[in-house]
Parts: sequence; structure tokens; C-alpha cells
Amino acid sequence: MLYTDWVLIERGFDPNQLHARETVFTIGNGYLGTRGSFEEGYPRAMPVTLIQGVYDAVPVMYTELVNCPDWLPLTITLNGDPRRSERFSLDQGEVLSYERRLDLRYGLLRRSIRWRSPSGKTLDIQFERFASLADPHVLGLRCLITPIDWEGAIAVHASINGYAENQGFNHWDLLTQDQTETNFTEDLQLEPAIWLAARTRQSQIELGMAAKLIIQGVAATFQRESAPGYPTLTTSYQAAIGQTVLVEKIVTVYTSQDIEYPLKAAQSKLVTLPSYPECWEQHKQAWKSAWHTSDVIVEGDIRAQLAIRYSMFQLLISAPWHHQQASIPAKTLSGFGYRGHIFWDTEIFILPLFTFTQPELARRLLTYRYHTLEGARRKARSYGYKGAMYAWESADTGDEVTPRWALPSDPYASDIRIWCRDREIHISADIAYAIWNYWQATGDDLWMRDYGAEIILDTAVFWMSRVEWNSQFERYELREVIGADEYHEHHVNNNAFTNRMTQWHLEKAIAVYAWLEHTFPEQAAALAQKLEITPERRQRWQDIANHLWVPYHSETGFIEQFEGFCNLEDINLQDYEPRTKSMQTILGIDGANKRQVLKQPDVLMLLYLMRQLQEFPYNPESLKTNWDYYAPRTDITYGSSLGPAIHAILAADLGDSQTAYKHFLQAALVDLENTRGNTAEGIHGACAGGAWQAIVFGFAGIRFQDNQPIATPHLPPHWTRLAFKLHWRGKWHPFEITHSASEMNSYHPSPSPEMDEASPTINLRGAIFDLDGVLTDTAEYHYRAWQRLADEEELPFDRQANEALRGISRRESLLKIVGDRTYSAAQLEEMMERKNRYYQEFIESMSPSDLLPGVRSLLTELRQQQIKIAIASASKNARTVIEKLNITELVDAIADGYSVERPKPAPDLFLYAANQLKLPPAACVVFEDATAGIEAALAAGMWSVGLGPVERVGNAHVVLPNFADITWAGILSKLNQHLS
Amino acid sequence: MLYTDWVLIERGFDPNQLHARETVFTIGNGYLGTRGSFEEGYPRAMPVTLIQGVYDAVPVMYTELVNCPDWLPLTITLNGDPRRSERFSLDQGEVLSYERRLDLRYGLLRRSIRWRSPSGKTLDIQFERFASLADPHVLGLRCLITPIDWEGAIAVHASINGYAENQGFNHWDLLTQDQTETNFTEDLQLEPAIWLAARTRQSQIELGMAAKLIIQGVAATFQRESAPGYPTLTTSYQAAIGQTVLVEKIVTVYTSQDIEYPLKAAQSKLVTLPSYPECWEQHKQAWKSAWHTSDVIVEGDIRAQLAIRYSMFQLLISAPWHHQQASIPAKTLSGFGYRGHIFWDTEIFILPLFTFTQPELARRLLTYRYHTLEGARRKARSYGYKGAMYAWESADTGDEVTPRWALPSDPYASDIRIWCRDREIHISADIAYAIWNYWQATGDDLWMRDYGAEIILDTAVFWMSRVEWNSQFERYELREVIGADEYHEHHVNNNAFTNRMTQWHLEKAIAVYAWLEHTFPEQAAALAQKLEITPERRQRWQDIANHLWVPYHSETGFIEQFEGFCNLEDINLQDYEPRTKSMQTILGIDGANKRQVLKQPDVLMLLYLMRQLQEFPYNPESLKTNWDYYAPRTDITYGSSLGPAIHAILAADLGDSQTAYKHFLQAALVDLENTRGNTAEGIHGACAGGAWQAIVFGFAGIRFQDNQPIATPHLPPHWTRLAFKLHWRGKWHPFEITHSASEMNSYHPSPSPEMDEASPTINLRGAIFDLDGVLTDTAEYHYRAWQRLADEEELPFDRQANEALRGISRRESLLKIVGDRTYSAAQLEEMMERKNRYYQEFIESMSPSDLLPGVRSLLTELRQQQIKIAIASASKNARTVIEKLNITELVDAIADGYSVERPKPAPDLFLYAANQLKLPPAACVVFEDATAGIEAALAAGMWSVGLGPVERVGNAHVVLPNFADITWAGILSKLNQHLS
Repeated sequence: MLYTDWVLIERGFDPNQLHARETVFTIGNGYLGTRGSFEEGYPRAMPVTLIQGVYDAVPVMYTELVNCPDWLPLTITLNGDPRRSERFSLDQGEVLSYERRLDLRYGLLRRSIRWRSPSGKTLDIQFERFASLADPHVLGLRCLITPIDWEGAIAVHASINGYAENQGFNHWDLLTQDQTETNFTEDLQLEPAIWLAARTRQSQIELGMAAKLIIQGVAATFQRESAPGYPTLTTSYQAAIGQTVLVEKIVTVYTSQDIEYPLKAAQSKLVTLPSYPECWEQHKQAWKSAWHTSDVIVEGDIRAQLAIRYSMFQLLISAPWHHQQASIPAKTLSGFGYRGHIFWDTEIFILPLFTFTQPELARRLLTYRYHTLEGARRKARSYGYKGAMYAWESADTGDEVTPRWALPSDPYASDIRIWCRDREIHISADIAYAIWNYWQATGDDLWMRDYGAEIILDTAVFWMSRVEWNSQFERYELREVIGADEYHEHHVNNNAFTNRMTQWHLEKAIAVYAWLEHTFPEQAAALAQKLEITPERRQRWQDIANHLWVPYHSETGFIEQFEGFCNLEDINLQDYEPRTKSMQTILGIDGANKRQVLKQPDVLMLLYLMRQLQEFPYNPESLKTNWDYYAPRTDITYGSSLGPAIHAILAADLGDSQTAYKHFLQAALVDLENTRGNTAEGIHGACAGGAWQAIVFGFAGIRFQDNQPIATPHLPPHWTRLAFKLHWRGKWHPFEITHSASEMNSYHPSPSPEMDEASPTINLRGAIFDLDGVLTDTAEYHYRAWQRLADEEELPFDRQANEALRGISRRESLLKIVGDRTYSAAQLEEMMERKNRYYQEFIESMSPSDLLPGVRSLLTELRQQQIKIAIASASKNARTVIEKLNITELVDAIADGYSVERPKPAPDLFLYAANQLKLPPAACVVFEDATAGIEAALAAGMWSVGLGPVERVGNAHVVLPNFADITWAGILSKLNQHLS
Repeated sequence: MLYTDWVLIERGFDPNQLHARETVFTIGNGYLGTRGSFEEGYPRAMPVTLIQGVYDAVPVMYTELVNCPDWLPLTITLNGDPRRSERFSLDQGEVLSYERRLDLRYGLLRRSIRWRSPSGKTLDIQFERFASLADPHVLGLRCLITPIDWEGAIAVHASINGYAENQGFNHWDLLTQDQTETNFTEDLQLEPAIWLAARTRQSQIELGMAAKLIIQGVAATFQRESAPGYPTLTTSYQAAIGQTVLVEKIVTVYTSQDIEYPLKAAQSKLVTLPSYPECWEQHKQAWKSAWHTSDVIVEGDIRAQLAIRYSMFQLLISAPWHHQQASIPAKTLSGFGYRGHIFWDTEIFILPLFTFTQPELARRLLTYRYHTLEGARRKARSYGYKGAMYAWESADTGDEVTPRWALPSDPYASDIRIWCRDREIHISADIAYAIWNYWQATGDDLWMRDYGAEIILDTAVFWMSRVEWNSQFERYELREVIGADEYHEHHVNNNAFTNRMTQWHLEKAIAVYAWLEHTFPEQAAALAQKLEITPERRQRWQDIANHLWVPYHSETGFIEQFEGFCNLEDINLQDYEPRTKSMQTILGIDGANKRQVLKQPDVLMLLYLMRQLQEFPYNPESLKTNWDYYAPRTDITYGSSLGPAIHAILAADLGDSQTAYKHFLQAALVDLENTRGNTAEGIHGACAGGAWQAIVFGFAGIRFQDNQPIATPHLPPHWTRLAFKLHWRGKWHPFEITHSASEMNSYHPSPSPEMDEASPTINLRGAIFDLDGVLTDTAEYHYRAWQRLADEEELPFDRQANEALRGISRRESLLKIVGDRTYSAAQLEEMMERKNRYYQEFIESMSPSDLLPGVRSLLTELRQQQIKIAIASASKNARTVIEKLNITELVDAIADGYSVERPKPAPDLFLYAANQLKLPPAACVVFEDATAGIEAALAAGMWSVGLGPVERVGNAHVVLPNFADITWAGILSKLNQHLS
């Protein structure tokens, strides 16, 4: 994978990464998410489109987000005769080039392929797709088709696939589709369109989807096909060599959660839609607004820059922009992992990004918990408690949907009971914590009055009924819980995390009630009646808050994770390195349960949460003490993916930016580099949110003091700049952090003018030039050397004959020249040496005038722009030539025939050059005139500019005839066009 | 539903019965079963094709028979324009007539529909299908299409639906289909064909299916469509009014369990297949052979006759004719109930039919248990026992696949543990019992040596490790079991059924080993070594057999179901009547568990099994004692469906043939009449097998004595004849039982020559004739009466004017005749009376010569054939006319204008006539010349012959112009053509 500051690039297709990359290239618009599956399909592909809030029942797991009818299918067949037709597919024929790129700035997924069919027809195909952020019901898909070396019939089939499934399970009953006479809008009969309506089997949610096909640049016919559940629209045309035809598939979708008649709505929308370019333009504007407030700029670390934007992008497209009663599932809308259920991940890990950059979305995320209060109350009642006890896993109703069992396929193995539903009760306090922080950050009193207060108070009622009084120690306790750390699930009593969060929750519930009573006495009275909050009960809350035991050692600041934790068998995780599995897998469930090994931060999680509020038990000393004890005992690599971001923030807080950076990357790259091997199941939403927090709360060290956010930066050493802005109490606070500044202890926001103008440029810092044919043309000198040899041997030769030698080795060139004439091997050897000698003599006579037109001014401009310059030539005479051309002082590095062993198209020479420049490949652009050279640049993961005809260098990102009148700005502009 | 002796007929389509009737109309060939779903589809339809042995994993239920790609889809669209096309479907337009019939003799399913499209086009459509019993890989489907009142384009689409699912779950990965270039047989390119290959996701079984379409009688074009997973072949033609076009869809199917390359095999088979009629002929021959040995003839009870043949049919098509390692699932191959798992149902309820009429299939069914011995050994090991402990539910490997949990959808309800897997251990003894009986019946010593002995011995090893020694009582015990009765599943110790079966099993294991040691000493030694059967262990078996406690009271013969059963709270089931739910549903699981209420026979089940062997504890007195105690406490109506057949046999044994008959019908009609409301889930295989046993062991009272089967009949009073044959020790023993014979105490087999010739005729015993227009033509006398009136009134009238009066009432006829002329109401009244008086005068002059041609000879023939004759006429003058025609002595009954109130098309008049003849409607044929008369006959559930033009009487089963040259044999032949 290549990273630019805005674009994620996949060069080459690896079937082994199929499912993981489908996840990584997910696009969406907050209404739905669609995995990056191929339009034309692929064996074992897992195309998924998940719509916010569309849940349906499923065995064991209770309910799950439903995979919706697939809007992607667009297949291409060559040659009209169905008996001999070939269908474009990456598992057939030959893939000559492949590139997939996700432009985060506009949520555009583009794929460019040059493909040769089994019968030898070559084709350029480019797909692009977007899910409109401006109109959530509009999906755009484009395909550009160019036959390279053949002509004939092409058919493009655009379908809606009604057989989408959730890992084998089909939730849909087909209701109607275009083949039937019923339920269509008359207008749709007038242009080629297809549609489909379906209904989920249990939840009875109806979905309507419609699609039309537009073809440009050619005369075409249209035909509909009627396979049940798979309506297809086919357009056929005669393709000409080199002629590019544009096909647009525009799709509309509604569900009965949006509107009463979703199919009619989809049909009407399709008919009244503006053109594809207009839809695209509206969509772009929507994204500009989104990034305007949410963007984070990192300079000096292109990977971190891309990773943080990627994380934000994946969360932005999963947020309920258009839904009033939905939240962000743990695996976002990008895969089947955790069945679309909602965990504490949202409130604790993901929410801050929204609270501080998209507060409207943060409010919706929290309002979801208000709409699911009844489910939380049902759960409390079913366990014999009062008030609201939130589900560990929550879906549409808020009822508990954590599976009760993990079922083994072995019929004799025991089923594994999943205890989180019963014991991981801290979720209710986590939600209260998130609400409190949202309120503090936004001052959204009306929301607090109408929604937040009821949640905080009714969960406090729950805690009141859940605690136990220990008469012996005269304290309240919480027994048989699971804390944040899930390796310990049996006989966990008085977990510090849970007890302190509960205590904090009750304190804040008292405060919220007092505030409400003071500010909105009517609402306070109504809530008190509804929730039966008597003064006596509030007194009880206070009593519990005062006497709920937190196992904190006040002398040392050490906190025992739970009662008796330190009596468990100790463990040295280093003894198990290197490993590729979680400690629970290695030790077994019971083995981990009885040792001092943590799946994720627990005491440290508590310290992190209280750090944000600067409340007990957080203080720097306590942090240090507990970090030293718990961090080495935490399975941060293969335990929970929730861990690394929290460790990153705390490590930064402790001033260890190296450790902080390591953990930040663990969170930020978890899906981009599939470090845990489970990216196929969906995006790790909590890692994405945690990565943002690691930057803002860790590296920038943001705290809220004196009624404003204040930074105490701990930037990684190689970061040259960090910029973002935060919304706090009605105002935007921009931050601009560099190392010079970060030497200060802490500092206040400063304006960052560039933020709003951040352009989606490639961040190029080096230019690598081939020599021969690019900077100069030594072909002339080769010709002269051959001519001299031919004349001496009285062989016929001239400029025209010389043309036949292009790209041919020295030996083969000689054999062409001698023709029928007979020579001994020794004679031929001597002649080759002689020719080379003449060549070397000629280049001795080279001068600056041998620089090709435009080269010197370009090199000068690069130098001014502080772009580093290298020359990479396979020639062993390169240094001589460079000297003669008098450009030595413009060049930072030279890679020549002595530098590496493997010739182009191996990437070695360019990688060597980049290394000399101390630049990553993605920061370099290569200028080449040969096919093999372009291939080498692509293989190196570099940008490429081809000089010469498209037939020779068409695979390059940008093709130029030569350097005449070319500027660096012009090249950058062309490369950026390639991105957008 | 109508029953003839071989044909099951459904008149009219009821969407509420959709799924149940899909089950009822299942066809198959022992390789696969296909439910009776419609070819053209229907909303919420559940089309299912299950292939023997094709299992795949599924959550919770471990594994299930996989719904295979659907070979049925054949849709018809009218009018080529896709924008205005209408698709034939019973939920659209108007169904003018509908009939579905399953011919059990040849396994042919036929459906005839007259349908009017929403735009008013009328169409006759007839579908038929069969799964070849001659070649298991061949499936035939035919469709006859006749436009009645329009002409235009028709398209027929034949598909393979690769999206078959198991209640939402899709087990298949699509591999390839006709749209791709790979993997096809070249020949198939030459004719219109489609194909598809898919693979199950876990078990990795590949399936290949191919289909071709042949159209006859018209010029047509062909086209293929390429929707992934839904290959479709479309043929289009121009239809003419009244022209019938025949479309044949022939399908071939293989799996990788049959052959290495199933798709290639399916393609090759398709190419080399003979014509549809030839395939059909081979198939018919195969069925003739099957029925030759298995048929049971019941006379005097058409419903019983059809039901027993239906039961046998459903078992014959589910038996593994072509599979070496499969058995019959509890719900056969006809639905998703019990996921295709195999229970004791097969060995105890189903097997005897096969043992005694298809011994080769019986052997295969038992050999399945040999192939699954390793699974039974794994189960024993997993529970800490030795030997082989058979799975309560078994699938491909023999491992236990009973679901461990019944999962409620309510997230707070407790999961219900299913204990059968752990406790219902009698299954191992049941298998031994079945093997022993097979061996006794067939004398198949080689099979016993190579397969049966190892099963009986290794399960004996299991029992040895399962029993416990009770030191206090000095006896062996079996504790914590579930007996046959599943209402008691907790703390059931020393269940009489389980203990006695175990004791019996050990006794027979000792006997089998002794026989093996004597007859095949080498094999005995090898088995003894393999299973570690030491002499000491055999001694232990004997010790256990001697001291395993069976709670039998030797003074009274009463057997206590298990230790302490009689101490449970007693119950009077009459107190709960009327009810429509099981007693467990009414009382709850715990409530039933602590009462003396049985889900199914337990002690009585033991007595039934031991009755077959005439072994302890069976004797007539013990049976009477225990019957009187347990039968009233058994939930025979809504408890287990396994109960009724056993009660039927025992009641017959007790001489109570009325009770026996009642329970027999409960078993035999369970699916035909969906009496338990769960027929949608599949055929009750055990009921079908039980119904056969109820007839053979109950009503015929077959026992095996003196080395031959002997009958002690207890026929239901209205049965006039019962005939069947049994295979016993190498010979066929035909039985022919009538009441005269059944007065004897018992009797020996007698030859039954008719058996082998039993023809698939409709069993007609009555003919009902309309009078006017059928037997005579009084229209002439009506004309003469009108003419006389008109002449008197000087009104213009002639024969041509009379034609306009056909089918018009007397009053309206008069108004037509008077035209413009004005009369008072009284005058009109007088004229009508006058006309009727003239008519009566005329018919006084009628004579035998007024009988229409052919009538007298037909009536005479009917009388000779002992077919009863009735005349059913709405006329009040009918008796006069009959006298004048001089046919009174040929007529057994007359229904006339005085007999009933509602006129035709109400069925009342014909039902009245049938009642007079003392015949069921299905045994009668009606002859009618009016549309309303045909409708009345159909509504009465009778056969119908229409006289006159098709436009008038086309809905009749057979249409004749008149009776000239018509014989009864000719009519029967035409009616039977309609059947076959």
C-alpha cells in the first residue's frame, strides 16, 4: 500500500488479501457503507452494503445489521456471441496493470486496470464510485472502457443483486422487481432502468432500490433481463480501438425506515436526479464542509498523515448523518464482525472525535442511547434490578444482544458461555461519562435536559439496586463483574475501574439532578416522578458514592485491579515472545483468568478516563506507579485492539513519545496493514477513534483548563508540524504545533490559516531522473559510434538502419549490422569493444548544450522548491555524462551502473536513489523514457512521469512528450488530477 | 383433497396451505426429493430439493441436508414487449380452474390451470414433472400452453436457481455457470442448454446441474441469460388461439459424492439422454417393479387405500436406492424439519416396510449404521464410555448432531437444554433390534457377519460400560435416561423400556457372538480382537442381562414406566378436552415432567416391540393390563406423532378394531390432512411407516410362526378386502384377506392373482346422469310448446328464433317472443302456465325412441359392470320423463327438482344422488351438458364427463360430443389418461 497525504493506493492485486482489502476500501456516507468489492465480482468475494439501523433477527446472535441488495454489479463482456463471449474478471486472462486508490478527501474509490482477455484482447478499464454525502440515497458508479488492440462488440451488464447474504444467511424476501407490471413509476418506463423491492424477514423493513445506466460517446442498445432477484440492464455497442466509452450507473435506495413507500421513492429520485457530474459536485461540497472542521494535518510523517485521515474518514462515513436512532457499530458499516452491534467502543473511543469536531453527530450518537432506554430497562428488570442497565451489545431496540454462547463446531466440545452480557456492567457508567463530557464540551443544556439527564439518572437508579452492602467492612461493593480487562471474568469483585466509574457516575447524577432542579425545575420534577427519584434515594446515592470501595493504596497511589488480583500467579510476558497469538489463546481461558495478565488496560483505562477530567485517582505519580506495574502485564499486541491508543496517550502523558508513537501506530495501522489479521471482518472503529485521541490528547496533550483547551505537546521527533482544531463551548480552537513550540511546556491555541486551504496534493520531496533519453540524448553518440565502426568494416549502415537498434543490446545491434557477413566470435567481441571505445570518446565531447530542452530550468525550479534530485541510470558512464552536462551541483545523489545488480524493471536502482536522498519511495517521482523504467518506478511504489509516446510509457501516472515548457508546478498539477 | 385409489387430487388452490401442500406433493426417486412448489414461483414459496447425503454445517444444529439448486423454475410471459409483458403467476390475474394431482403409481405430479391474465388473456397451462426412478440423475418437466382467446408472443423461461436456501441460510458457493467459457462440454454449445456448478461451503461437496429446453409444435427462438447463479434459457414463439405448444425441460444432476466431475457428468448425461417419452417409459417400468412387491390393496375404504399407498410412496422415494451410506431422515427428503437428521424413527417405524417388501433397501438403511459406527464410538468416548453409543440424531458421520439448545428469540428467556443427546440412549438397542429382525426375516447371514454383528457387539460393549451396579439391591441399573416417552427427561431411573431393551440387546449380542463363533470362527476372532470382547466380558454381559432390573410386577403383569412413575401426580386427560395443543404446552416442561402423562407409548412401545418377537414381557394379559393403565394417560393426539400407529397395532391385537382404525387414520392422514399443523416442515416418515405396520401387523395381525408369516386379521368392518405380500426368508408370501376369511382365527397366505395386475384406474362405482340434453333432448318439446303458444297468439316464431332461448328462463323466453307487443302481467303469467301445460302434454307422448343415440347400450353396460346409476335433474318432471323413456329399471336412484333447494352449480343435487347410491363422491362420475352442471360436479368432488362443445363443458375431466359409439371402457380409458 502506498500512502500520500490524502490518497491510499494499492498497486497490484493480491487475492490472499481479498477480504481485508474489501474492508479497507469501504466507502460510505453515514447512511450506508459499501465494502470495496469489485464491480465485476471475484470468486469468494464478500460484497456488503450495510444501511444504518436495518437490523434483522439471526440465530444465536439475536439480531444483526443486514447485508442489503448489492448495488455494485457491473460486468463487461467482449464480443456479442454468447457462445464465445469473454467476461472481464481478474481471475481470468492477464492483469497487465492494476491500481486501486481511495481518495479520502472526497470518498472516491477508483480502480484502473489494463487487462488482457484469455483470447488476447487488451482493454483499459477504470471504475470509480462514491456514495453521495450530499444526498444519502444516491450512489454513483462510473466505468471507462478502452479497447487497446481490437475492435468489436462490448456488452455492459448493470445489475442489482437481491441475493446479498450475511455469511450464508439471507435476510430478504423479494417483493417485486422490474419484470413485474406492478408498482412502477410510469416515467421509469421511458428510460432504461431496473428496480427491486425486498423486505427483511423478521423485522419487516422494506427496501427499494433503483438503477439506471447511461452510456456516453457511442451508439448503444439497451436490454433488460428478468432473473428473479437479479434485475439486469445490458447495454451493447461496437467498440473501436483506442476509443474510450463512459458508462454511468446511478443507483437510488430507500428503506421503510426513511419513507412509507421506499420503492416509489427510489424510482422518483432516480427520475428526477441531476446528471452524474452535478451529483458529484454536490457530494464534493459536502465533503469539503466535513473536512473543514475535522481535518488533522501531520507533517514529516506521510504514513501517520494518511493513517489519521483514513481513521477519521472511516468514522465519518459510519456516523448517523441521516438517522435519528442509530449509532456507530464496533466494526462500523464495513463488515460482519460483531454483527453491527454497538459497544462502549462508541462512547469511550469514538465519540470524542465527534464531540470536538462534529458536535451535531456526537449528539445523535448519544441520543441513540436515549432511544434505547426502554431496552436497558427491560434488561434491568430481567436481572431483577431497577432503572436502566444498558446492554453490553446493543442493536435497534437496546435489548441485550450479546450472544449467550460461542458454539463450537465440534459436537462434543462444550459450548463457551459468554459472560459479558451479565457481568460487564461498566457500560452504563461509560455512557454517563460520555454524556457528561459531551455536555461539558458543548454546553448543550437543552439536550441534557431532554435526553441526557434521564439516561444519567435512570442508570444511577440501576447502580443503586446493583451494589451490595458489606456489613463486615462497612462498605458498598460490586461483586461478580467483568472490568475493562476481559481476561478476568470469574469471581471478579470490586474491580477498581467499575467501582470508581460507578462512584463517579453517582456523584455526577447527584450534580445533574441538582442542576436540573435549579435550572429546569418542572423537568426535574417530572423526571423525579417518572424515575421515582425521591430525596431519600438521592441521599442513598450519596451514601453509596461515599462508601463504595475503590482498592486504591493512598500511600503509593497503586490501584489493585480487583480484590485479590495481586495474589494471582504473576507472569512475565517477555517469556512468551516472539508470539503471534493472544495470551488467552496461549494460556487458555482458565489459564489467563488465574494470572496477572490483562487483555486491555483496566486500572490504566480508569486513569486515562479520569485524566481527561483531572479527577481522582489520576495524578502524575499515580499514573507512573500504575503504568510501571500494569503496562508490562498487558497483552497490548494480541489482546484487545482497544489497548494501544490508551497506552499511547498515557505514554505521551509520561513524556515517552517513542512508546507513545509505537502504540499510536498499532492503533492507526490496524486495518491499513491488517496487523491483527482480522480486518476482513470490518474496520476497528475504536482504533480509529483511539488514533485521533492519541494525536489530540496524547501528542498534542490537550486538556481543558481555564475554560479553554490547552496543549502540552509531546510530538514524535520526526513530526515537523501538527495542526487541527477543536470545538469547545461554542467556539473553534485551532491548534498549530511544531517542535520549536513544543519545547514550551504548554501553550494555547493559535490560528492556523492553512487549515482551511489544505489541498489534496501529493507530498513529493524528491525527483529521480533517468539520464539517457530524459536529461540528454546519448542515442546520437551511440549512432555515431556504430556508424564509425560500420564505415571501418565497410558494412552498410545509416540513420535509418540505426532506428532498428532502439532498445536492443550491444551484441544484438552488432549482429544486425553485420548481417550475412561472417566473423569469428573473437572478432565480434573486438568490434563491440571498439564501438564502446568510440562512444566513450564521443561523450567526452559532450557539453551543457546536450541537455534536452527545458531540463535545466526544471532542475533549477526543483532546487528552489527544496525538492531533492537524484539521477538513476543503468549506464556505467553516468557520472561522466553528468559532469559533461555541468549539472553536478544540481544533483543530490547518483545511482549508476555500479549501484545495484538487478536491472530495470526491477525497482532496485530507484530504491537505491531514494535511500541516498533519505526519502520514502512514496515521496519520490521518477522521470523515465523507457517501458521497463516506468515498470521499475511503479514497482518501487513511486510516482512516475513518462516521457515519450503513450505506447511506450502509458503506464506512468503522467505522460509528457518532453520537458519543453514544463514546470514543476505543471507536473504537480497533472499528478494531482490523477488523484482527484 | 380428493382420493382415488392411486391418485391424490387437489381441487382449487389455497394460499394458506401453500407450504403444507408443497410437502404433500413432494416427488422423488430415492436420490433426491423435490417439494411440490410451483414451477412459476409464488410469494413465500419454499421450493426444496434435497439430495441424499448432501449435508453441510449450520450454526446450532451442527449439520443439515442442503437445499440444492432449484431445477423447477419455468415461467411464462405473455406478449414480447418487456414493458407490457405479463407473467403467469397464481397471485396475479384470475384462476378460472385449478387442479393438482399426484399419481402415486408413477410418481407423476401434474397441475392443470385455466388462468386469465390481468389484461384479460385466457390461457390453459398444464405442468407435469417426475424424478426418474430408472436414472436417478434425470428430472423431467413438461408444460403445455394453450391460449384460449388471444394470440401473440409467448416467452418461456427455464432456469436453474442457484440461490436455494435453507430457511434463509445459503450453503452454496457458485463455481461456474453457462455464462463462462470454462468447463463446458463442447456438444452442449450445439443445442440450447444451461448449467451451473456449486460447492457447499463447509463440507465442500460439488454439485453440477444442467438443463435443456425443447419446444414442440411451433417455430421458436432461443436465448440465454446470464445473471450470476440464475442461468436462464428463454424460448419465444408466436402463439395462435387454441394451439397447444409443448415445452420440455430436462434436467440432469450429479454431485461429487457420485462422481469426480459432477458438472461434466451432468452435461454429458444431458447430451446423450433419450427423448422425454423414452425417459418417462423407463421410469414407469421402474415404478411398476417397485409397486409389484410393495403394494397394499384396501377395498371398501378409498381414503385408507390412498393413504396407505401415499405413505409407501413417500417412503419409497426417500429410501437410498442409489446411495451406499445414507438413510431416511425423520422428515424424509421433503422439508427442513429436523434438518435431515436420522432418528430411531427409521429403524423402528420405517424399516419393516422395507425389510418385508424391499429387503435390498432395508439392508442399505442398516448399513448406514455400520458406516457411522466411528461417529458412535467418538460419542461414547466423549461421554467416557466404551464401545459404540449411537447418536440420537445422526447425519453424515454418525456424530451426535442433536442441537444442544433450543434458543429463544427473547434475549432474556433462558435457553432450553435439549437432553435427548445425553440421555435418550435406547437408540443403540433400537438399532440392534432392527438388525436382529432384518436378519430373522431375510436370513442374510453374510451381511450379519460383515456388518450387523459388529454393530450389535460394539453397542453391547457400550451398555456394559453404561450400566451401574446397585450394591444395596444387588442389581444393575440405568440411571438418568430418557425413555421412549419424552415428557419425562429428568431423574428417570430404570426406565422399563430402556432396561428391557438393553437386557434383550445383551442377550442377543451373546447369541450373535455364539453364532458367529460357530459359523464364521475367523471373523468372530477378528471382531473379538478389534472390539476387545474377551470371554470374561461376555460373561459380564450375561451377568448384566441376568441382573438388570426391569420394573415388572409378575403377579399382575403391570410394568411401571420407571422407578417412581406411579408416585407422580396422576392426571385425567379428559379434563383437558377439547384441546388443540400438546399436554407439555399446556402444563409446561416441568408440569408434564412431574405428572403421569406420556408424550408417546413407553411401556406399550416395549410391549409392541416384544410382541413382534413374542418375547418377555409381552403376553395378552400383560398387554391388557398395561394398555388399560397407560393408553388413557398418553397424549396420543398432540403428543408425539410416533404414538398413533403403535396404539393402532396394540388395539387391533386387543380386538378393538374401531380404536385401531381411529389411530391408524391419525397416522395415515397426518400429512394428507395436516392434522398436526406441521406438515409444512416435511412428511412424517415414522407415521408413514407406522401406517404400513398398523395394516400389516395390526389389521392383518401378521406374526411369524412355524417359519412363516401368519395372519390373525382384525379388519375394520367396512373394509371388504385387504391384500399385500411379504418377503420372508427368501420367499414371497401373498396375503388376501376378506371378512369371510377374517372370521377364522388366523390363516395362512393365499395367492392373490390380481396383485400383480393392479391397474392405476379410478375406482368408479357410480354414474350420475343429467337428464335433459344428456339422456334425452327435451329441447324439442320446449320448442314445440313455445311454437304452439306463439301460433295461438299470432306472434312470429320459428326454429331459428328458438335458438336464442337456450339457457334462458321461462319468463325471459316469453318476453323475447312477445317482443314489442304489450300484455298485462296477468296475461304473461297465464301464457307461461299455458306453455308449460303444452310441454307436459308433449312429454306425455315421449317414448324410448327419445333416448339419445348410444344411451341405452351405455346404461346396459354399466349395469353389467355393477356400476350404480342415478339420474340427477333439476326438472320436476324428471320421473315422468324417465318412465316414458322406459329406463326406470336401469336406474338405482333419482334426484329431481324436489330433492334439494340450491340449483346447480351448487353440488347439492349430485351429492344427494351419491348419497342415495351410498357411494362417496370420489367414486362417482357425472355426465352433464351444461356449464353449471360441470361446475356442480367438480364442486361435489366427483369425476365429470362433459357432453357438447368444449366452450360449454371444457372444464370437465373428459369431453365427449355425445354418446354415439361410446362404451364405459372407453370413458374409463379417457379418465385414466387424465390421471397418468
